[in-house]
Amino acid sequence: MLSIEKYQEEFVAYLKKYSTLKEPKNLYEPIQYILGLGGKRLRPVLTLMATEVFNSDYKKALDAALSIEVFHNFSLVHDDIMDDAPLRRGQETVHEKWDINTGILSGDAMLIMAYQLFENYDAGTFQSLAKLFSKTAIQVCEGQQYDVDFETRNDVTVPEYLKMIEYKTAVLVGAAMKMGAIVANASESDQNNIYEFGRNLGIAFQLQDDYLDAFGNPETFGKQVGGDIIENKKTYLYIKALEFSASEDRMKLRDLFNTIPEDNAAKIDTVKQIFDASGASNATREEIKSYTNKAFLVLESLAISEEKKALLYSFGNALMNRNV
Amino acid sequence: MLSIEKYQEEFVAYLKKYSTLKEPKNLYEPIQYILGLGGKRLRPVLTLMATEVFNSDYKKALDAALSIEVFHNFSLVHDDIMDDAPLRRGQETVHEKWDINTGILSGDAMLIMAYQLFENYDAGTFQSLAKLFSKTAIQVCEGQQYDVDFETRNDVTVPEYLKMIEYKTAVLVGAAMKMGAIVANASESDQNNIYEFGRNLGIAFQLQDDYLDAFGNPETFGKQVGGDIIENKKTYLYIKALEFSASEDRMKLRDLFNTIPEDNAAKIDTVKQIFDASGASNATREEIKSYTNKAFLVLESLAISEEKKALLYSFGNALMNRNV
Repeated sequence: MLSIEKYQEEFVAYLKKYSTLKEPKNLYEPIQYILGLGGKRLRPVLTLMATEVFNSDYKKALDAALSIEVFHNFSLVHDDIMDDAPLRRGQETVHEKWDINTGILSGDAMLIMAYQLFENYDAGTFQSLAKLFSKTAIQVCEGQQYDVDFETRNDVTVPEYLKMIEYKTAVLVGAAMKMGAIVANASESDQNNIYEFGRNLGIAFQLQDDYLDAFGNPETFGKQVGGDIIENKKTYLYIKALEFSASEDRMKLRDLFNTIPEDNAAKIDTVKQIFDASGASNATREEIKSYTNKAFLVLESLAISEEKKALLYSFGNALMNRNV
Repeated sequence: MLSIEKYQEEFVAYLKKYSTLKEPKNLYEPIQYILGLGGKRLRPVLTLMATEVFNSDYKKALDAALSIEVFHNFSLVHDDIMDDAPLRRGQETVHEKWDINTGILSGDAMLIMAYQLFENYDAGTFQSLAKLFSKTAIQVCEGQQYDVDFETRNDVTVPEYLKMIEYKTAVLVGAAMKMGAIVANASESDQNNIYEFGRNLGIAFQLQDDYLDAFGNPETFGKQVGGDIIENKKTYLYIKALEFSASEDRMKLRDLFNTIPEDNAAKIDTVKQIFDASGASNATREEIKSYTNKAFLVLESLAISEEKKALLYSFGNALMNRNV
């Protein structure tokens, strides 16, 4: 097996060969642009890794890995339109650099191209990959819809929130790994277990993202710390804080999330204080630990060498320590 | 084989069973809405017909037919956003009734659902259908992009225009019929011939649509006659008129298509006069005939009974006479 960095390198080289400019230019240029913006390419790397974990050559999984990356970027292009986001990875978003119509149509083409990337596999593998892909892609759409719906709801529950982040983020991590297992012809039980590893790790990662958005180190987190609080995002921390707080703090928190404050720094401070005092911060840390442990526990059931389990374990740890 | 009306009926019954409301409602309600707006369901009917032409039961093709219809409606939802269209089949468009974000996300889900409708077929059939689907869907996106590009270009050629309508409209008609042939396990040559029948008929139909938009009977055409002229659409008629006109008429035509007139009726009259006088109307009628004949000629090569060829022939005739 290769190192993470080496998989990233191999994947980016393959992506470059794929991403050539076709006609009509106004359709394919934005696709080339978004695919070239970079990022850590973690999802496709997971596909390549999973293939080798199950004793097959990562090269066989390059198309499946690329499909995952193309789909992920499709969802970024359309989500950025919906969120009216000006920037993506520090650069202009597609709908900003071109326009909304271009973003819609280029995104549509990317979704189709993601399916086309399965076409070089034999019919059985093709069907397995495409089925998993469709199921996952629909869940990602549903997750995005729940996320939109939650913006205007005041009664979102913890199970609802967990389902939203599972669909919007975690199932794609699980699917990325399961695709590697499918390409490697792993047993069904191994396929399902590696999916569960990815899914649970994905939920843990997203919960940690929520946590770090409030409590992370501004120098290493990569996004604006407090951003979720400024935008009144009802994250796990917020929902738990409402649940745990006495009525006074609960009202204060609701108020803070329903008004535009004069001073964002003061709002962030007060909200973080309530997160801590209510026990929400602690509960979130516990939940992160719980999902991480679930992921690691699944590793035990895989029919692979202890060495390879250790590799997946250390990847999971590196991910949760934000070292990849 | 059944009558067109009977296929329509059977298809609509199947569509109704499919189109049940799932969660999240804000994602699936718009899908149910657009699929329920009606229309002649000609594309899915073509899939069912083609299956029976190649001696198989249309019931086997219901999922493939539904996939074609779901895809077609996906493209309507996204195109209506891009065209800022308020109405579709006399009812509010999805992005008008809900909002643009809903239109984007519900459309995305429909594109994925269209692929899922192949999942009940065996792996080989699944791969054939999905490959054809992807190739067609990408062409539809490219056709839409060319259509958008042409709006701001003054040098669109006839071959470019023909490619645009082929991609945007005709390939889906060909694919609808080829899917029926695939489900029926027809020979590769029959599959390709029925595709060519549909593709050529689709081009003829779209050219006729352009023609009738200017010269059709307002009482039977279904759309506002002169609509393309009001919107300065560079149709086959317009491109041919520019090609055939003497410089004075060419300048007049260019001017009329670059300014907003005080009197649309007068503009329509003048433009139609130039279309006629230049020979563009005649050339368009000839081109429609030529593509229709190409379609009918392909029928000869199909390995099916004369009776079934006659059925396809009379369907094509009914379509071109706007009797279905």
